[in-house]
Amino acid sequence: MENNHISPSLAKLLTERNFVEMKAELSVMPPADAVEAMEELSPVEQAVLFRLLPTDKAAEMFEYLPLESQEKLLHAMGNEEAAKILDAMAPDDRTALLEELPTHVCARLVDCLSPKERLVALKLLDYPEDSIGRLMTSEFLSIRDSWTVSQVLEHIRNFGSDRETLNVLYVVDRGGRLLDDVRIREILLCPLDKKVSELRDGIFTALHATDDQETAVDAFRKYDRTVLPVVDRHGGLVGIVTVDDVLDVAEQEATEDIQKIGGMEQLDEPYMDISLGLLIRKRATWLIVLFLGEMLTATAMAHYEGSISKAVVLAMFVPLIISSGGNSGSQAATLIIRAMAIGEVRLKDWWRVMHREILSGLTLGLILAAIGMLRISLWSMLFPDAYGEHWPLIALTVGISLLGVVLWGTLSGSMLPFLLKRLGLDPATSSAPFVATLVDVTGLIIYFAVAGVILQGTLL
Amino acid sequence: MENNHISPSLAKLLTERNFVEMKAELSVMPPADAVEAMEELSPVEQAVLFRLLPTDKAAEMFEYLPLESQEKLLHAMGNEEAAKILDAMAPDDRTALLEELPTHVCARLVDCLSPKERLVALKLLDYPEDSIGRLMTSEFLSIRDSWTVSQVLEHIRNFGSDRETLNVLYVVDRGGRLLDDVRIREILLCPLDKKVSELRDGIFTALHATDDQETAVDAFRKYDRTVLPVVDRHGGLVGIVTVDDVLDVAEQEATEDIQKIGGMEQLDEPYMDISLGLLIRKRATWLIVLFLGEMLTATAMAHYEGSISKAVVLAMFVPLIISSGGNSGSQAATLIIRAMAIGEVRLKDWWRVMHREILSGLTLGLILAAIGMLRISLWSMLFPDAYGEHWPLIALTVGISLLGVVLWGTLSGSMLPFLLKRLGLDPATSSAPFVATLVDVTGLIIYFAVAGVILQGTLL
Repeated sequence: MENNHISPSLAKLLTERNFVEMKAELSVMPPADAVEAMEELSPVEQAVLFRLLPTDKAAEMFEYLPLESQEKLLHAMGNEEAAKILDAMAPDDRTALLEELPTHVCARLVDCLSPKERLVALKLLDYPEDSIGRLMTSEFLSIRDSWTVSQVLEHIRNFGSDRETLNVLYVVDRGGRLLDDVRIREILLCPLDKKVSELRDGIFTALHATDDQETAVDAFRKYDRTVLPVVDRHGGLVGIVTVDDVLDVAEQEATEDIQKIGGMEQLDEPYMDISLGLLIRKRATWLIVLFLGEMLTATAMAHYEGSISKAVVLAMFVPLIISSGGNSGSQAATLIIRAMAIGEVRLKDWWRVMHREILSGLTLGLILAAIGMLRISLWSMLFPDAYGEHWPLIALTVGISLLGVVLWGTLSGSMLPFLLKRLGLDPATSSAPFVATLVDVTGLIIYFAVAGVILQGTLL
Repeated sequence: MENNHISPSLAKLLTERNFVEMKAELSVMPPADAVEAMEELSPVEQAVLFRLLPTDKAAEMFEYLPLESQEKLLHAMGNEEAAKILDAMAPDDRTALLEELPTHVCARLVDCLSPKERLVALKLLDYPEDSIGRLMTSEFLSIRDSWTVSQVLEHIRNFGSDRETLNVLYVVDRGGRLLDDVRIREILLCPLDKKVSELRDGIFTALHATDDQETAVDAFRKYDRTVLPVVDRHGGLVGIVTVDDVLDVAEQEATEDIQKIGGMEQLDEPYMDISLGLLIRKRATWLIVLFLGEMLTATAMAHYEGSISKAVVLAMFVPLIISSGGNSGSQAATLIIRAMAIGEVRLKDWWRVMHREILSGLTLGLILAAIGMLRISLWSMLFPDAYGEHWPLIALTVGISLLGVVLWGTLSGSMLPFLLKRLGLDPATSSAPFVATLVDVTGLIIYFAVAGVILQGTLL
């Protein structure tokens, strides 16, 4: 990347808090880089700088700030100044900011907007949270079937300047119903007297404003477009969604899944920005649930106290056996959760997945069982006292338990996401620690049951 | 989404294998949907259908097929036919396919390409794997400073038809050095006699062809663009990268991270397509490594065999204690790995993170310790025989151990990703199971050390 670090001269201006010269330097940088350079200024200093910039440039740079910094900066600005920037912002970026603010702050700022922008802002905020409507901008350019290419170009010159994109134009009928999308390339490559109706192919894909944002991610993934139109229930064109916002949604989704897989609630805020109290709360809930579940291991162990006191050697392999089950379960669960999230595995595939996972579990279990038995045998030959005279039986107990536990871990780890999805829950909730806890308890039961059978009459 | 399911009439044609009518229906659908409808045909049948389609349409639809299906379809086609489609494909999509094929198949197909496309294909394949060069297409449109807007429009009409995008044009000098990017909107909104040099602002961001693809993902995330230019070492414009390919890379990266967090090697292929043998191999490696690490628990337990045989009650809490450490470690590790992947946390933040994680670990540890001690006290009051007369000491042992283990789990889980990154390794390798295993062994040592101190003279 070019320009991705702060030049020495700019660094000097920043240290000197020379706002006038700073403004000049920042104006000729890509806005994303300018914003990065401003990071070390305080919100109040940023507000001073923004006051010096022309509104357009200020709004453009403002859009590149992280949401948290936008919030802080708005606080540092006066109401009037904040409204000026909000007025000039792209409607989709503005919605993203407004929905983060406390309700009364949001209401006050919306009141300060110009009448036209206020209408737009209220309309977008009216869509349900996490719906495509909240991602949308209304700044698209629509054209009519009867126009010629030269009329379209004329229309662009007159009304194109404040539109989010001119890369795709939208053909609508008198009632505002979306008929087709036409890429600017098709307009540019055509003779000037050709009519729009002759250009268009009638092939288009539209999103629905009230659908979940995940639908938008799937659609962009599938159709490889940079912008998609959004329609209401009646097919009327109400806005467009651009791919940059969708990249953010996709990233956010992956982050949430990863956090759930790690065994916590999704944070909803960047790690470095979230308050320590909230961070701990998001983690404590699941940790407590898992701890309560894990308490069943103490109950199970108490149940087998007799066996352990007769054969203390059994206790030695408890961590090894339950963790092997937990590890294979974590593997299977994360694998299936991610495959589901990106559409590689669907609900109806559960049977095929189970088939594969049984075979995987058996193979993996046999491998670990072999290593475990080898280890016990070797140790017993090197140190005859290690596991006593009945070491072949102990080796067999550990081996069979490992096979059973790994198979069970793999199977429950892979099937749990299906079960959760079938119940309408988020498959990612079957986190690695959740599966591990489940398998810990059952793993103990498997182990001591196997020991009960094999060591009956010798150690037990 | 509109059109996202197969119409009854198309379903009928598919069942009847009526290829001629099918071709007519598929031609008027968005290519992504057409390709989805074709999924139920065999590769040989798909080849028949592709033969009926005009080459342009065939190549367009072909680009939307998953890589695995593209491979199968190429096998089912004749060499000549395959070359015709590869010739018409976008260079970036073609590279993605060719790099997946066995070397000899790739070489044979490249030989069949037209001389011009062969050159392009070989040049792109010459860039290192996972470099931006492999994502790039050379079909950009470059313009010159001295041209007027009307000359630019003329140039577009003459040379624009086979370019990947006309949304952004690139200003280069005589030597092909990139001077600026100009969005088509700026061209369209300007008087026809204005010169390119008057339009441009000199603000642009370029990627480097040999940089890692992750750099491209970061740049698109930061600059919110739909397309970015790629330059060579000398600043010469060599290609462009479009955001759709970057969305795929970002998704692929998230998938790899999730799989590593789950404790396995990245699969590199969709779950349902990967062969069972390879699937098991990718999982077995890490499972075996973890198992070998976990064997240390058996060694540790053997070391404490004397304590256990004196106080069997200690064995009962082993699973509870080590799993609490594992769970808190998994949480911390996944949290930090993801925050690093999306740039929220950088290496230099390790000190601040450690500070936060110590506080989190202490709080979480205190919570679990309190619950654990409460549980033991309650049980001892309800069932006086449960843990014997010394239950307050046991409760204290378990409580202190839980605090220590959770603190240690949180700390090592959060610091391990930093350590790995510092060593130039992938932070995601510090998977949840890896941290859990590490914490299991140390957790046992903490537990028995605490027991040794507190129970000295009573139970031990």
